[in-house]
This record gives sequence, C-alpha cells and structure tokens, in this order.
Amino acid sequence: MSRCSRFVVSALRRSSSTLQCVRGRGVPPQLSVSSRLQQRRGQHTHSPASLSDLGRSDGGHSVYPFTWLRDNCQCPMCTLQSAQARKLLVGDLDVNIRVDSVELTADNKVSVVWQGQHSSVFDCDWLKRRCFSAAARRTVQEELFLSERVHWGSSLRVPTAHFHEVLQDDRAALAWLLTLRRVGVVLLRGAPPEPGHVARLAERIGYLRLTFYGHTFKVQDKPMANNVAYTAEKCSFHTDYPALHYPPGVQFLHCINQAARGGENLLVDGFHIAEKLRAEDPEAFHSLSSLAIDFTDTGSDYCSFKLQAKHRVIQ
Amino acid sequence: MSRCSRFVVSALRRSSSTLQCVRGRGVPPQLSVSSRLQQRRGQHTHSPASLSDLGRSDGGHSVYPFTWLRDNCQCPMCTLQSAQARKLLVGDLDVNIRVDSVELTADNKVSVVWQGQHSSVFDCDWLKRRCFSAAARRTVQEELFLSERVHWGSSLRVPTAHFHEVLQDDRAALAWLLTLRRVGVVLLRGAPPEPGHVARLAERIGYLRLTFYGHTFKVQDKPMANNVAYTAEKCSFHTDYPALHYPPGVQFLHCINQAARGGENLLVDGFHIAEKLRAEDPEAFHSLSSLAIDFTDTGSDYCSFKLQAKHRVIQ
Repeated sequence: MSRCSRFVVSALRRSSSTLQCVRGRGVPPQLSVSSRLQQRRGQHTHSPASLSDLGRSDGGHSVYPFTWLRDNCQCPMCTLQSAQARKLLVGDLDVNIRVDSVELTADNKVSVVWQGQHSSVFDCDWLKRRCFSAAARRTVQEELFLSERVHWGSSLRVPTAHFHEVLQDDRAALAWLLTLRRVGVVLLRGAPPEPGHVARLAERIGYLRLTFYGHTFKVQDKPMANNVAYTAEKCSFHTDYPALHYPPGVQFLHCINQAARGGENLLVDGFHIAEKLRAEDPEAFHSLSSLAIDFTDTGSDYCSFKLQAKHRVIQ
Repeated sequence: MSRCSRFVVSALRRSSSTLQCVRGRGVPPQLSVSSRLQQRRGQHTHSPASLSDLGRSDGGHSVYPFTWLRDNCQCPMCTLQSAQARKLLVGDLDVNIRVDSVELTADNKVSVVWQGQHSSVFDCDWLKRRCFSAAARRTVQEELFLSERVHWGSSLRVPTAHFHEVLQDDRAALAWLLTLRRVGVVLLRGAPPEPGHVARLAERIGYLRLTFYGHTFKVQDKPMANNVAYTAEKCSFHTDYPALHYPPGVQFLHCINQAARGGENLLVDGFHIAEKLRAEDPEAFHSLSSLAIDFTDTGSDYCSFKLQAKHRVIQ
C-alpha cells in the first residue's frame, strides 16, 4: 500500500513519482498521475499497468482536480448505481474540499479519503477514460459523436444500401447508419413500392418524430397545396422544416411512384457549400451565419399550425 | 397615376416625395417610402393614407431593397397562393435586377415593372408589415415571439390557473399559455388524481413529444431506477433531458399522489440565476456559457437508449 501523501515530498525532491498529490499555488488541489514515471517505477508492486498509459498521448501526464473527483465519487451514497447517475446534491458538494490521503490499493484502484471522513475509490480504467488530456478527450469525443465527415461536391457517387438487408441484418444497419452519419445521404434500394416502409425503417433504429405534418406525410401534387413540396413544380434547394425550433437532422424519403418525366432529386452538401462560401465570400458567409432569419409555416395537415422560428441560415 | 421614376429627380431637388426610387451609389437600388412627406402631400390623389404610416416609428422613412421586392414578388408565378410560400427558384432570382418603373396604382398598391417584363404588385399593408425600420421590426418580433419575460426570485407567487377552465375555455387557455410564456411556470389546480390528464392538457394545445421515456412517464420510486428521478431521494436543481440534442422548453408534471412527508417541488428561474451570476462572477458565467459539457443518458424505458449530447450549461 503506497500512501501517496507520504511520498509527495520525496517525489517532488526526486521530480518523479507514481502518483503526485499536487497542491500548487494558484491552482486548485489536484491528483496528478504521471505515466512516464509510472513506467520507471514499473517494479513497484502497486504501480498498475493500467495506470501506466494514463494520459500518455498528452505527454504522459494526467491531472484530476480533487473537486472534480469528489463531485464524481462513485460510491452508492454519491452515485445511483442502477442509473450510473449523480445522487450527490450540488448544494452538498464542497468545492474547497481537502484531502486526508490518496492511496493506490492492492487491487489497482485509487482511494481518496476526504477531510470529513467520506472516501472515494476510483477504478483506474474509469479514470483513464476520463483523462483530461486533449488527445484523450479527442478520442472519447470521436467515440461518442462519430465526428468524421465527408464533404462532397458533384463527383459524389451516392452511397447505397439494401432496404431489406438494413432491416434484417444488424451489421448492414450499422454500416448504413455510419455512412449516413459520415456522408449525410444514403440511397436504400429495394423498398416495396407502397406506403408504410418509412415507418418500418424508423422503427428499426428509433422512432418517428411527430410534427404538424403527422408521423409521416405524402409528398404529392395536391389541390390547394399548403406546401410547395405538394405541387409538381421544381423546388429550390432547401432544408426541411426550418420553421421548427429544432429542424430535423435526418429525413427519410420513400419514392413510391416515379414520374414518367422529371421528378429528379438534386442533392447538395450544405457543409461543403458553406466552406466554399466562407473561402470565396467571407462577408456573405458572415451574414448568413450571424443574422437570424424568420421562418414561418402555416396551414393544416395533421393539425392546424402556425409556426414561427428564427434561425441563422448557416449554423 | 404618379410614376415614381419620373419624379425622382424633382423629388431629390425638393428633398421630398411620396415615393422615392433611390439608386444611391454604393448601396443597392431600393424603393424608399417617406411618411412625413406623404402627409405633406396628403392632397395628392394617389398618396394613400395606408402608406402614410409606413415606417413612421423610425423617423417616417421606409426602404425596401429592389432585390428583396423581386424575391418577394407575390404574383402566382412567384408565390404559391394556397401556401403563401415562395415558388420563385433561388437560381432564377437576378440579384442585380433593374426596375423599369414604380407606380402607385389607383387601388393603393405599389406596382413595380422589372426589366425583362415581369411585374410585381405589393399591397401597402403587406409592405408596412415588412417595414425594415428597427422599431417596426421590434413590434413584429414581439407579436411573433412574445418575448416579454418575468425573471423571478424567491418572492414569486407562482401563478395559478384551473385545469378544467384551461381545458374548456379558450380565453383561459390563452391566458395560461401567455403566463407560462412570460413567467415560465404555472400551477394548474383541479386536475383529477389519476393518470392521463397530462395527455389531455397536451392535446389541448398541441401534441406530446415522444422520447425514449415514452409519450408520458411515471415519476415514482422504482427498484433499479434508471433515473435519479425514479427514487424517493431529493434531486438537485436540474433541467430535464439535457442529453437530448434539443431539450424540451416546457414540461408538464401531474402530482397524483402527494407524499405524506417531503415531496416538495423547488423551482428556480434559471434566467434570473444566470443574470445574477453574470453580474457577480463573470468568469464563472463565461465558463458555463462557453464550455460544452457532455451529457449522457442510458437505460431502457419506452425503448433502450444511450444518448449523448453536448451543450453549454447556460445557452
């Protein structure tokens, strides 16, 4: 059992330690984990391998503020285990909390005893996943948000997938979703030519969003159309539902009857255009990305509606 | 019939006109309407009263860019009448379009003939409603978005309304909604103590938003709770659904069984707190309003879910 607080002084003297309790001036007290030094002390019984990678990508050094550790205490009093959610009341958190001791336990956990008797035990993998280093955070963010994007022009060959494979095969569904996330559009082939299959597809991955046009709606030529999409005329490039406070990120279109003539769908990558505009006409880009525009949608479909929202054209 | 383009020169000479066609240098060509001068020319047959208020609140002067007028042409070729929506394709709009003539017609409309033969007729009230003056825009924005807000502290007497009145009486429903919009919270009294009445209330004014917790959900003590709200313990102040990309603006809670002890609801006005924080601790305000925080929600309710979103705490 290597008691951190014991070797802080000697660690600072040697400029090396497995775990540092840093109480710098002007910075909040924090727990500091140095991987390079971990490795040098690899022979130490309580220097766990799982800790030795902590923060390596950012110079081999990870720092965890003590206040953050206390706020994230994983004990059953502070965290509801079944929800993995915070139970500790914000008002009960002492942001100036002080530490009695920090230890590496025999089973490779970091144990912190706080002044006032409460103690917290952190699993090394748990800490590692929450490493504050820029590189580690980038990795976690990429895992959480899949931020890889392809921006495309007219040379794009629209990626395709098979409707029935996506419905039946989990791997095909995942591949479809990852492509949709990365490229923004996927053409699914083979859906039967009757209504109802948009709903099947949505239920495959989540649930439909109800709007004032209903759960789904028919885009077809209608008398007294309350939307230009409900006519046979050509539409300008557009995003859908700009009059919603939160326009949808993804929309499903199911072509049931193809027009004998016309009826082409033209697609454009708004992100690509925005980047081009930023480069070629910064003033226009600034206007479109800073001025909020009024959007109105009014009429009657699933219900009567008169919607009004304010958005920048480029967000 | 007073042909605008004819009297521009004399108008500029006299520094007065009913309608000015302004073709300034360095600014786009535009239609300018001066109300003060309108009034001075009140004896003029074609100086309609409805135009004489145009832009009065902003110094009696309204300016409409010709490009904007062409873009907003209300004729059946450019606007789908049944939807009151633009049909003119963006690609077909000539942003450098020139004007052949501008006229006030006998029935008090502004007629613009564009080079290339197309013509537009604008109703004076339609123009007035779209006046570009700052004051006129403020008025329209207030009508559209009801931006009046009350920020409150502990002295608030929570406004109340009656559940059945709101359901049955349109004026009571409107009063409830306006108060909800202005104050952020309204206590409805008299709802029957059984499930289902949240849905009735929602259907009164719109429709429920489906989330991974279902259309509605029971907040009650549950074994293996997947949310701290599903326990009997005290919750910190919170907003709901921060792990949604678009957290809800309004939430309905229906108290069906009141606890014998405890069970208090504490409310706080986040906008009020944010303003206080901005004044008292600008650095903290800056952090909370600029740093995006990861929010996670995971579990199973209406369906299995693992949600991840990134928001600033103060938006």
